Amino acid sequence: MSTVSTPPPGLSASPIAPPRRDAEATKATILRAARHLMARHAHADITLKAIADRAGVSAPLILKYFGNKDALFGRVMSFETDAAALLDAPLDQLGPHMVRQVLVGQTERGADPVLRIIFAPRQGDQGDVMRANFRTQVSDRLALRLSGPDADLRAELAVGTLLGLGAMYGIARGTRLRATAIEDIVDRYGPTVQALLTP
Amino acid sequence: MSTVSTPPPGLSASPIAPPRRDAEATKATILRAARHLMARHAHADITLKAIADRAGVSAPLILKYFGNKDALFGRVMSFETDAAALLDAPLDQLGPHMVRQVLVGQTERGADPVLRIIFAPRQGDQGDVMRANFRTQVSDRLALRLSGPDADLRAELAVGTLLGLGAMYGIARGTRLRATAIEDIVDRYGPTVQALLTP
Repeated sequence: MSTVSTPPPGLSASPIAPPRRDAEATKATILRAARHLMARHAHADITLKAIADRAGVSAPLILKYFGNKDALFGRVMSFETDAAALLDAPLDQLGPHMVRQVLVGQTERGADPVLRIIFAPRQGDQGDVMRANFRTQVSDRLALRLSGPDADLRAELAVGTLLGLGAMYGIARGTRLRATAIEDIVDRYGPTVQALLTP
Repeated sequence: MSTVSTPPPGLSASPIAPPRRDAEATKATILRAARHLMARHAHADITLKAIADRAGVSAPLILKYFGNKDALFGRVMSFETDAAALLDAPLDQLGPHMVRQVLVGQTERGADPVLRIIFAPRQGDQGDVMRANFRTQVSDRLALRLSGPDADLRAELAVGTLLGLGAMYGIARGTRLRATAIEDIVDRYGPTVQALLTP
């Protein structure tokens, strides 16, 4: 009998240590489970066991990967990794790239790069930590890429267009949006975002 | 001693019946209190007393105005009144008008006309009621105003830009956005929305 707990679907079990790629996939599964629960409950009410159950892993495995619950929520409330991918395009193509990142995140990874900021009101003091992270890791970082008048304002508005797209797709579940191919949405909405970046 | 309960701040007390204008203001205060709580708790966990306490009215007054808790939440989950005001402009000025409605709602009324759709994930089955209302009362109604290709898609994307503006202003609390005069934001973001309505 293997000494490791049941692996989540799609990950192969190993009695020694999972390959690095699988460990990263498991971490991502755990983060996704924690984010799912944070969308529905206050941070203080979410147990490690609830996260483990949803992720299909054991609580000790979460501790092994993240140290403790606070450290896990620190990762959940950080936008650092997502922002790096979100902003990874030349400025003149950044609008369409960001739109694609939001849609691919929602459809393929079940995780929008920025939308979880909307759960801040439920999280008390932790909500302010999320807001500060969001500002420095997303909006301010985008603003640094922009030139011309009102760059800070345009950066916040551009991030707003992405939040709105994610909310319309993933929360309001707009029927037309969800019936449209990603690249067609990119063609339609990319220029909307781009016009705020390079007016 | 008056037989009516303590009125909310800014409303004059009357021993008979409040003037119609004050009754409307009180109803709005009650709806705002219910929406505030729905942003933070599941609908099933919100008591009439909690709404009454937050609104500064008595629970019986809420029953007098709305009938029962379900009817009150029916109002909270409807976008009918807000959508009417949101869409009340000629098509060629609708983008700036909607942007202004979102910002004035947030700053002066403490109530965004559309943003509460983002609380749907917390509300279980009621969330689907909100989504259906949102679709028929907001997105579909806007789509009927539009002509040209992809009108339904453009309507959902335009509503998305408004959700994103509200989320960036009221939830992420973008510092530059909140430091900018409403009309300056309208000047900057109105054309973004308008370009989706009349491309």
